[in-house]
Amino acid sequence: MDLHELTRSLHTKNDSKIVMLVADGLGGLPLVAGEGTELETANTPHLDALAARGVQGGSIPVAPGISPGSGPGHLGLFGYDPLKYLIGRGALEATGIGFELQPGDVAIRCNFCTLDDDGNIADRRAGRIATDQSVPLVHRLREISIAGLETFVEPVKEHRFVVVFRGPDLGGDVRDTDPQETGVPPLDPQAVDPNDAASCRTAELAGEFLRQARQLLSAEPQANFHTMRGFAVKPNLPSYDEVYGLRAAAIAVYPMYKGLARLVGMEIVGQSQSLDEQITTLENSWNDFDFFFVHFKYTDSTGEDGDYSGKVARIEELDKSIPRIMALNPTVMIVTGDHSTPCFLRAHSWHPVPTLLVSDCCRPDPAQTFSETASISGGLGQFEARHLMTLALANADRLGKYGA
Amino acid sequence: MDLHELTRSLHTKNDSKIVMLVADGLGGLPLVAGEGTELETANTPHLDALAARGVQGGSIPVAPGISPGSGPGHLGLFGYDPLKYLIGRGALEATGIGFELQPGDVAIRCNFCTLDDDGNIADRRAGRIATDQSVPLVHRLREISIAGLETFVEPVKEHRFVVVFRGPDLGGDVRDTDPQETGVPPLDPQAVDPNDAASCRTAELAGEFLRQARQLLSAEPQANFHTMRGFAVKPNLPSYDEVYGLRAAAIAVYPMYKGLARLVGMEIVGQSQSLDEQITTLENSWNDFDFFFVHFKYTDSTGEDGDYSGKVARIEELDKSIPRIMALNPTVMIVTGDHSTPCFLRAHSWHPVPTLLVSDCCRPDPAQTFSETASISGGLGQFEARHLMTLALANADRLGKYGA
Repeated sequence: MDLHELTRSLHTKNDSKIVMLVADGLGGLPLVAGEGTELETANTPHLDALAARGVQGGSIPVAPGISPGSGPGHLGLFGYDPLKYLIGRGALEATGIGFELQPGDVAIRCNFCTLDDDGNIADRRAGRIATDQSVPLVHRLREISIAGLETFVEPVKEHRFVVVFRGPDLGGDVRDTDPQETGVPPLDPQAVDPNDAASCRTAELAGEFLRQARQLLSAEPQANFHTMRGFAVKPNLPSYDEVYGLRAAAIAVYPMYKGLARLVGMEIVGQSQSLDEQITTLENSWNDFDFFFVHFKYTDSTGEDGDYSGKVARIEELDKSIPRIMALNPTVMIVTGDHSTPCFLRAHSWHPVPTLLVSDCCRPDPAQTFSETASISGGLGQFEARHLMTLALANADRLGKYGA
Repeated sequence: MDLHELTRSLHTKNDSKIVMLVADGLGGLPLVAGEGTELETANTPHLDALAARGVQGGSIPVAPGISPGSGPGHLGLFGYDPLKYLIGRGALEATGIGFELQPGDVAIRCNFCTLDDDGNIADRRAGRIATDQSVPLVHRLREISIAGLETFVEPVKEHRFVVVFRGPDLGGDVRDTDPQETGVPPLDPQAVDPNDAASCRTAELAGEFLRQARQLLSAEPQANFHTMRGFAVKPNLPSYDEVYGLRAAAIAVYPMYKGLARLVGMEIVGQSQSLDEQITTLENSWNDFDFFFVHFKYTDSTGEDGDYSGKVARIEELDKSIPRIMALNPTVMIVTGDHSTPCFLRAHSWHPVPTLLVSDCCRPDPAQTFSETASISGGLGQFEARHLMTLALANADRLGKYGA
């Protein structure tokens, strides 16, 4: 029995409120041996006050030693086993630009490329063509028309764009057309399994799309063709409502995180552009939902930049948001991250993420501060992220007893 | 998706070096209530210095409460789920005497026994016949000849020896011929499943082997026959190279540990007879491998003898080897054991094994000593041994990100 079979059969309703504040890439490392992590260096009186009341631990995003991308990192926090549910690269790219995939859609990441006179690839990224030059070409590809198929062509950045196929009986198991080298022609799209009729159909339609694209782009000096990669159907994830009985809201600034939340059936609330605006949105929507996912991006981006003092400052900004959230008196307040992004590594990492849970019925541990070190001996121990939602439901008195 | 599917898809190459120093049976217990374990009593300044720099935790060899043999203990450390991969007893016995099993081989543990005049077993171990008397009898059994089959007969100790069948289409699911009691005749070899043609073939060949053995031994007063037990094919384990992308070396003194390492594709390096010689071998082979398994036996054997001061002394000997290893500047240094062998129990036990990992990007914990007690509040927490290799790869920057 997996976790969702359990929660599906045990969840109950009440008027509790759960807030999950996700500081992306929260966990860190000392920059200098013997000193503290970013979180340990930051001045965080409000988080520390929560730590004194609550219980903390180290969240393992996927498995020990595994550094997750944003997709598996968030799926874990949302309680979806990240080793069971995979979001294909095309679907994640479409999600990341805010495209609302529908069931059955196939999303494809595309790169403009340059073909030489013999039809061989001279540049796999069309010289990393500038965004202001590539966007008009993306719009031109919207002229492509294929019988029985709805197509969407959306710019991403530079040479990258997304194509979505919408129509009956499409499969996602189609090989990349990018040969990963120059001096050879692009590959034809092919189903991985020739007996997979749906993916064969997608491959055939992709071939027609490429044929028309070649004509439309033929006169371009730089981006005279494109490749297709990461074919992926919309992932089929059960919804928060179904597995947890929660009306869930997502309050995020960046499209990627709105998209991930939408995949699990959360409603995107507000148009916030800053953490302050996000908290205002939280206040305004407080009566309409049971669960609130609030995403704070900048602890990750400063980590990826290796900007230690910047990440410290962003953690202090996060800390200042706590009183407004706690003034709403959430039944369960969680502060966590989808993974660590230590400035020392300038990348997502595998280290456990300090995670804090406060409720009237959590069992408080002795920790008086919120930090990586405090979380080692916290009452939640080290746990896989996918267990966090069950803990949230329990602390909100939203789970019945298992068995008699 | 299992761990090896993950590591197989994520591993990358670089010039990092990983050392896994395995002190067999490292974990212990106080001999007297209120006093320290063997590791806590030993004077270990070098291990403690590593603990101050690194992160430690308690490795659970198989599952809480499960005491492993050497096979599952090492498979776990090597990252192979010891509940998924079983090494049959015949294969482990052959491995233990240094016999290099080939794919398709069937290995069988044999015991000399004494039959009475009625053909019933009078002594299941032939009076525990001395090794110098049994070895010539083992050699005599090499006269056995079976068409289409290559047989190997190798002495072990006292009444024990190993037979290996090499030939086409052999199966390992054959019942023991030892009836586990006296006063009854030995059983005939029989396949567990009569529809398993390969194992039926092995059973038939084993029957012919036993027929010839009976003739060859008939005049012996003590060991006039033998039983066959623990039929096992060579286990099919993916290699370190395949699942981790590592060129791995094993530096061990005893055949059992060389054999276990060989089963996962490690290369056996050197002919060391002491820890000092093992470290010299490590130095000499440093440039030829990415991963080094260094096995130290005597923390286990002193534990099994209940020799507390002897185990303390062996731990101190281990400690003295640390500076020479650290002088090589390994990217990742791990000190662990395959299980605990407390002198108090004189046996392998289930207790978590103190485990230490040091790298530039480990997240150090507050522990300043290496011990069972320190490991309880260490940053690795308690973890299943099979996750240790993933952590090693992550700390060596040899794993890509999982998912986008």
